Amino acid sequence: MTPVETGPILFERAAIIGFGNLGSSVARALRKAAAVRDITACDADGDVVSKARELDLADDYETDAARAVRDADLVILAAPISAYGPILKKIKAKLMPGAIVTDVGSVKAAVVELAEGKIPEGVSFVAGHPIAGSEKSGPEHGHPDLFDGRYWILTPTEETDPVAVTRLTVLWERCGAIVEQMDAAYHDRVLAMTSHLPHLIAYSIVGTAFDLESSEQQDVIRFSAGGFRDFTRLAGSDPIMWRDVFLNNREAILEILQRFGEDLSYLQRAIRWGEGDKLEALFSQTREVRREVIEAKQEKPYPEGEAD
Amino acid sequence: MTPVETGPILFERAAIIGFGNLGSSVARALRKAAAVRDITACDADGDVVSKARELDLADDYETDAARAVRDADLVILAAPISAYGPILKKIKAKLMPGAIVTDVGSVKAAVVELAEGKIPEGVSFVAGHPIAGSEKSGPEHGHPDLFDGRYWILTPTEETDPVAVTRLTVLWERCGAIVEQMDAAYHDRVLAMTSHLPHLIAYSIVGTAFDLESSEQQDVIRFSAGGFRDFTRLAGSDPIMWRDVFLNNREAILEILQRFGEDLSYLQRAIRWGEGDKLEALFSQTREVRREVIEAKQEKPYPEGEAD
Repeated sequence: MTPVETGPILFERAAIIGFGNLGSSVARALRKAAAVRDITACDADGDVVSKARELDLADDYETDAARAVRDADLVILAAPISAYGPILKKIKAKLMPGAIVTDVGSVKAAVVELAEGKIPEGVSFVAGHPIAGSEKSGPEHGHPDLFDGRYWILTPTEETDPVAVTRLTVLWERCGAIVEQMDAAYHDRVLAMTSHLPHLIAYSIVGTAFDLESSEQQDVIRFSAGGFRDFTRLAGSDPIMWRDVFLNNREAILEILQRFGEDLSYLQRAIRWGEGDKLEALFSQTREVRREVIEAKQEKPYPEGEAD
Repeated sequence: MTPVETGPILFERAAIIGFGNLGSSVARALRKAAAVRDITACDADGDVVSKARELDLADDYETDAARAVRDADLVILAAPISAYGPILKKIKAKLMPGAIVTDVGSVKAAVVELAEGKIPEGVSFVAGHPIAGSEKSGPEHGHPDLFDGRYWILTPTEETDPVAVTRLTVLWERCGAIVEQMDAAYHDRVLAMTSHLPHLIAYSIVGTAFDLESSEQQDVIRFSAGGFRDFTRLAGSDPIMWRDVFLNNREAILEILQRFGEDLSYLQRAIRWGEGDKLEALFSQTREVRREVIEAKQEKPYPEGEAD
């Protein structure tokens, strides 16, 4: 953990709407950085709010988003993407003039489109996505260092207020992140490859194992150390969040899935025909990619041992 | 790490043929357990032998397998499976009467078949496979605790000497492993699911990324924390070893690959048609599998942070 820079209070009140692992990690990171004066934790699920209160993760607690945003100059959407529409509709008339609304969702083009017309005059919207997280759901699993050294992507459009972008950049950098700006559609293509396809494949392969007969399934679990357990970690991620990712980044995911299917068929054919040279050639290339990932310092465990 | 039981010397000299990460881990574990009097490290690659000598991982060092086995009452094949045939041919006339030959390869039915007729009278062969390893190649990356709490599967046939099976069971238990016996073909089916398919898919998806245009590829590497880097770890594994696994467990792998392809098509179709309920239902099931993996205590990191 690099030491977090401290400095002046950047926002008076941050309302975090959706207080699962990621939302609570944002709250913890903001507190650790002393970057906002007060935090309102909001979740539609009363049990989640109770858990947040029990852990003393915020200053105020709400189940109603419209109440949560009333005096917030910063509103952070951290709910599943399918909830964004209803939340934005509900809070629209309650947002403070001058407030900034942002989000932490894994898909950006659909979010930018969805926010259009739902943000009132005088309020800025900046779509964002921290490349960090964990498969464990719930506010009790959040971590203040989750964003430390991680990328936090903002996808402003030509209409986005540049001051709001700057203020969020300073804020997330205070939380330890490396902030980058990117076109929303490009973000969605890159993330389809780095995150959405890996999760889809992990869900699929673990599903394949789920359909084995019971005795064999038990042995698959017992002997999962051979590679399978890495997939179970990804496939243990929040079902609603990921359903929404796949539905909201459909085209980019289907495109990369098509490529992946072709490449897998090539390997399948090489195995069937015993073409060891083709296998070895590819496996040597992929080893290079691994080396680059390590050099890019993206091989870093989650603060408590795991990340995705 | 559970404390390793000590006890009497179980073999006078273990010759380890193939001294990469896994071979060197076996040597380190045997030493830590004080289970054999002497160890001969053997590898066809002189650089590997020099590295082993430099690290003082054995008592004697050889590049020639025939010389290495001369006075060994235990011979452990830890080379890629494609090297087994030539090695067995070379050592056949040199094996000591009463010696036990075993291996640590990831495929078992092909190995059992391959050993037939290549083991002389008076020598026992028992095929084996520890479910542990790392994607890092070379003797310098081995670890004495690699097998601690891990399964070590033996696949004896009706012809296998039961005394040899018992002696190896005691030996690997002294190294911290949980030893189980299993039919070779069943082992290959289970491992196709838990290890071979995950590696094949990881190689494939990392290969797909390798084919992206250069700028996008760089961003895939920078933003690999979203799931992709887990695949790069598997896809960074030894190319020759894995080529041999795929070629030697062809039928079981093609069978499970077929099932996986069908399951992935089902998800692909659900995404295309926006069938969120189907996605959510599967993702909830797979979360269960994750829970079972954790309960089975197979979620345990490699001694130095990583494993496969």
